[in-house]
Amino acid sequence: MPLGEFELIARYFTRPARRAVLGVGDDCALLAPTPGMQLAISSDMLVEGRHFLKTVAPDALGHKALAVNLSDLAACGATPLGFTLALALPCVDEVFLAGFSRGLFALADAHDVELVGGDTTAGPLVICITVFGEVPPGQALRRDGARACDDLWVSHPVDGGLGDARLALEAFRGHVDLSDAEFTRARRAMERPQPRVALGLALRGIAHSAIDLSDGLLGDLGHILERSGVGARLDYAALPRSPMLAAQAAALQRQCLLQGGDDYELLFSAPPGARAAVLRAATTGGVAASRIGVVESIPGLRLLEPEGKVSTMSARGFDHFRDSGVTP
Amino acid sequence: MPLGEFELIARYFTRPARRAVLGVGDDCALLAPTPGMQLAISSDMLVEGRHFLKTVAPDALGHKALAVNLSDLAACGATPLGFTLALALPCVDEVFLAGFSRGLFALADAHDVELVGGDTTAGPLVICITVFGEVPPGQALRRDGARACDDLWVSHPVDGGLGDARLALEAFRGHVDLSDAEFTRARRAMERPQPRVALGLALRGIAHSAIDLSDGLLGDLGHILERSGVGARLDYAALPRSPMLAAQAAALQRQCLLQGGDDYELLFSAPPGARAAVLRAATTGGVAASRIGVVESIPGLRLLEPEGKVSTMSARGFDHFRDSGVTP
Repeated sequence: MPLGEFELIARYFTRPARRAVLGVGDDCALLAPTPGMQLAISSDMLVEGRHFLKTVAPDALGHKALAVNLSDLAACGATPLGFTLALALPCVDEVFLAGFSRGLFALADAHDVELVGGDTTAGPLVICITVFGEVPPGQALRRDGARACDDLWVSHPVDGGLGDARLALEAFRGHVDLSDAEFTRARRAMERPQPRVALGLALRGIAHSAIDLSDGLLGDLGHILERSGVGARLDYAALPRSPMLAAQAAALQRQCLLQGGDDYELLFSAPPGARAAVLRAATTGGVAASRIGVVESIPGLRLLEPEGKVSTMSARGFDHFRDSGVTP
Repeated sequence: MPLGEFELIARYFTRPARRAVLGVGDDCALLAPTPGMQLAISSDMLVEGRHFLKTVAPDALGHKALAVNLSDLAACGATPLGFTLALALPCVDEVFLAGFSRGLFALADAHDVELVGGDTTAGPLVICITVFGEVPPGQALRRDGARACDDLWVSHPVDGGLGDARLALEAFRGHVDLSDAEFTRARRAMERPQPRVALGLALRGIAHSAIDLSDGLLGDLGHILERSGVGARLDYAALPRSPMLAAQAAALQRQCLLQGGDDYELLFSAPPGARAAVLRAATTGGVAASRIGVVESIPGLRLLEPEGKVSTMSARGFDHFRDSGVTP
C-alpha cells in the first residue's frame, strides 16, 4: 500500500515545534509574534514546467521553493519566522519527497525559519509556500520609497553577477553551449538561489526602496519606479557579471543581464551619502553590492550603453500570461 | 492583447488596504497583529478535478476557496485578519476572474478579512489560500484537548444536517436521483459552505477540543481521538440530517453522514456541565448544535447503531493519495 497523506506528512514534513506554539497537525498553526513588530507575509506558487524543469533535483526544488519566498522577506528587510507549505503531487514518490524535504529543511535551518503547517493533495506538481517574518514598524523596505538622486544598487555574489540563472536556462534550451564546469555553475545559480536575508536586515534604515530580482532587472526596476513615481538611468557597463557570462556573445549577455529573471538578488536605492553604509551592509550580508545607476525625477527608464549612447528602455518584466517558458 | 499578470491583479484583486499596513503590490504584505495575541495560520490548496468540478460557477469557487480556509480558523476559535491568494490559471479568462473575485470578496467582506497579497501564474487551475487570524494566548481550540466524558457535538444549519455536500457529489456522479429543488439545495451545501467563525469564537473557553469537518465525520473525529489519546462512542440516530438526506436509502444516508466530507461544520467536545453554554454559543453563531456522542477513555471509535447494536468503526477519513475522486 502506498504511503497515505497523513503518513507522508508525518514522515517528511513533521518536526518538533520550536518557535511555534503549535505546529503541523492541527487546523491552524499558532505563532507568537514579538509584541510590537509588524508581520511581513508573502506567498509564491511554483508550477512544474513553468517555474522549474522536470530535470531539477528534488532537493534543489525544495531549496528553491523556500528560497524564492525568503527572498521576498529579504526585500522587505524582515526577519523570517515561519512558513506553510501546500503541495500537490501526482503520486507519492518517496525518493522525491525525501530529497525535496531535505533541500527545504536545509535552507529553513540555515535561516532559522520553521515549517508550521500546510496542505498536501494529489494533483499536478505544484508547490505553494507562504512565509511570515517580522519587522519593526516603519522599518520595512518597500518598493515605493525611491527618491531622485538615490543611487541604484544591486547585490551579487562576490565572485559573480546577474544573469547566470538565465544563462543556464538558455543552455537547457540549447541556445548556448557551455563547458561542463560552466553549466554546473550556471545551473547552480538557477536552482539554488541564496535569499539575501542578512543583507535585507542590514539595509533597514539605509535603503530608501528595495525589491528582489525575480522577473528580470528591467521589469523589477520598473516596479520600483512606478510605485515611487520616479525614473532612472542604468549604466550597462556597471552591471555585475560573472566571468562566465562576460565571455558570452553581447546579445546573450544583454538578455541575461537585463531580462534574466530568477536572480533573487536585491535591487535597492539609497542616498549617495549612504555609500559606505551600503558597502558595510553588503559585507554583513556576505555579498557584494554594485552601484548600477541613479534614480531621476523624470519618469522612464534610460540605459547608458557601453559606447556612451543613452537608450530608452521598456520596463516590462516577465509576464506569466504574455510570455511563455520556464521562468521566475 | 490579453490581460497581463499585473493588470489582472490590479483589475480583480487589488482593493485599498484597510487593516493591512501594506497590501497587494509589494514583495510582502505588512500586518500589525494585536499586541499579545497569537497568530493562527492555515493553508489549503484546491485543485480542479480533485477539490472542485469544472461545472462549479466561478463565484461559488471563489467563495469556497476562502470558506475552507476560514473554516480552519473557526476550528481554532481565531478571529480572521487576512489572507493571501496564490492562483495558477490556464489562461486569462475575465468572466472567470470577475466571478471568482466577486465570490471571494463577498465572503471576505462578510467576515471582515482582507486579501493582503499573493501570486498569480499560468498553469493548471490551482488555488492556494493562506489565512491568518488571531487568538488570545492559551484560548485556541485544538484537536488534542478532548477528555473522557466530554460530550461530542457537531454544528449544522438550523434546518439541515451533515452529508448534504456528499449527497450532491453522488448526484453529480449519477449515483442518486434528486429533484431539481433537492439538487439545488445539495449543490449549495457542496459549493457554498459557511465557515462557522462566529461559533468558533463563541466556543473559546467552553469546548475542550475542536476540528472542522472536511474529510468526513469518522476521519476528522479520528484526528481528535488520536491527538487527545482517547476513544469515543457516536450515536448514529443523533447525527443531524436534512429532510432531503433522511429520505434517501439507508446505505447512502450512512455514507453521507459518516464519510461525507466537505461539510465544514465544527465537530467539538465539551464537558457535560457546559451543555447550556454550548447551545448559547450555537445561537450566537447562528447555527444549531447536536450532541452526537461521548468521549471515552478506551481508545477506538464505536458507533451505536439505530437498532441498539454497537459497531467498531475505522476512523479513517478521506486520503488524497489512497482515495480518488472529487473530495474535500
